[in-house]
Amino acid sequence: MTLARPVFFVSDGTGITAETLGNTLLTQFDGLEFDKTTLPFVNTAERAKNTVDYINFVGQQTGHRPLVFSTTVSDEVRTMLRQVDGLFMDLFDLFIHEMERELKLGSTHAQGRAHGVADRRRYDERIEAVHYAMEHDDGASTRDLTRADLILIAPSRCGKTPTSMYLALQHGLYSTNFPLTVDDLEQLRLPLALKGLEARCFGLTSDPERLAQVRSERRPGSRYASLEQCAYELRQAEQLYRRRGIPYVNSASMSIEEIATVVLQEKHLRKHGYPGA
Amino acid sequence: MTLARPVFFVSDGTGITAETLGNTLLTQFDGLEFDKTTLPFVNTAERAKNTVDYINFVGQQTGHRPLVFSTTVSDEVRTMLRQVDGLFMDLFDLFIHEMERELKLGSTHAQGRAHGVADRRRYDERIEAVHYAMEHDDGASTRDLTRADLILIAPSRCGKTPTSMYLALQHGLYSTNFPLTVDDLEQLRLPLALKGLEARCFGLTSDPERLAQVRSERRPGSRYASLEQCAYELRQAEQLYRRRGIPYVNSASMSIEEIATVVLQEKHLRKHGYPGA
Repeated sequence: MTLARPVFFVSDGTGITAETLGNTLLTQFDGLEFDKTTLPFVNTAERAKNTVDYINFVGQQTGHRPLVFSTTVSDEVRTMLRQVDGLFMDLFDLFIHEMERELKLGSTHAQGRAHGVADRRRYDERIEAVHYAMEHDDGASTRDLTRADLILIAPSRCGKTPTSMYLALQHGLYSTNFPLTVDDLEQLRLPLALKGLEARCFGLTSDPERLAQVRSERRPGSRYASLEQCAYELRQAEQLYRRRGIPYVNSASMSIEEIATVVLQEKHLRKHGYPGA
Repeated sequence: MTLARPVFFVSDGTGITAETLGNTLLTQFDGLEFDKTTLPFVNTAERAKNTVDYINFVGQQTGHRPLVFSTTVSDEVRTMLRQVDGLFMDLFDLFIHEMERELKLGSTHAQGRAHGVADRRRYDERIEAVHYAMEHDDGASTRDLTRADLILIAPSRCGKTPTSMYLALQHGLYSTNFPLTVDDLEQLRLPLALKGLEARCFGLTSDPERLAQVRSERRPGSRYASLEQCAYELRQAEQLYRRRGIPYVNSASMSIEEIATVVLQEKHLRKHGYPGA
């Protein structure tokens, strides 16, 4: 009885929704250890039976009743999964009937919709957005810059690149990012390529200590990573943002997801229908 | 009564879980139009009150009872939100008590855990993975290649880049990708830089028609985009994968999420504790 409690995310699709659901709930329980396993594409009666056998086996081996988070559209598969010797929690079980009553419409029971290619045109656009964001990372290209939905600007290592990629991948945004160089910061000016594009800009700052730590991992002992240099660059960046009326956020204690959420809200850029929107 | 039905994703955090939950459920209802709005960071009583007023206002304006998907940890905020004049569905309402009983433990009611910086070391690793994946996109660098968790290989435009970025961002994987050039394909050999790294490789293929369509958008009328050339490259790629015992999948009708799920399963690369895992 000393092993971590087994947790399973089961789905007839990718399992992403089951993971999101389960992990969100599990963050609310401190001091317990969980051993998590994702079982995707459980979309036939045979796979459902094998899944139940496997989960029961793990439960017996560990001496812990497993927690099972499921998002299974097929009634047949779900009915079988429910037999599992564990706490079975299914998203569809709980909400879909309420929604059917409210919408006065039966649900389709179609599998693999949440994270599949639901809309080919929109999906292809999203892929184009990822390629665009790759090409335009860190000011690498000024081609087609007027196509950008968003231009993230910041001193080096404040989180521009991951945030930009996240917004392209999860929200299908044509997202670019430009570094503010020491020259830009000294003269409180935007990179020349961004002339006329101020309205698409969003700034990032950080805390000097945090920035110095991140930069030190790259170039330990350098002037670039010194607390003094980081403090100077951040001070100048904030002054530049304020002077140009560019919205900005301090990313020091925020995750990519939190930064992205703030950017989407501030710039009114949320396009619904993408995986992360 | 002709307007789309309003849908709200409400959370005291980023709203990502509420969106995932709600969008998954909504994919089950065909033929209805939904007008979706995300309201993140509703983490005070005052914001909860404003949120309820706003949702009620939209409901009255459209003549449709709104659907509200909520993942709100605070009991106080959730109690206020529940007053809304619409169908209110909260993730915590439904599952958290069952889990408390099962785990014989009270939940912490801590906000912003699901998509915040829960574990700084792990978060920083994830950011490093994103930078690594950027640097190693499309065979651009062979530096530190032994650090790679995964090497995706494929002919041009089969989905290597978006899949690689997704695995880095959502799963914290040191993910790289290499194109199979026409020379590689003709000689049925792997890129030279991958010598000794075959065990980390995963291959992608596609359908000739789909690949020709994707390539045509880049270089219409080119030999590169011709059906004949695409069919040849895919045939050779599959033969190469089989000969070298490299697992592969046909990405033609799959989303990034579905390809990534297959790769994680086949290569046993799922690290739990990341946003997408």
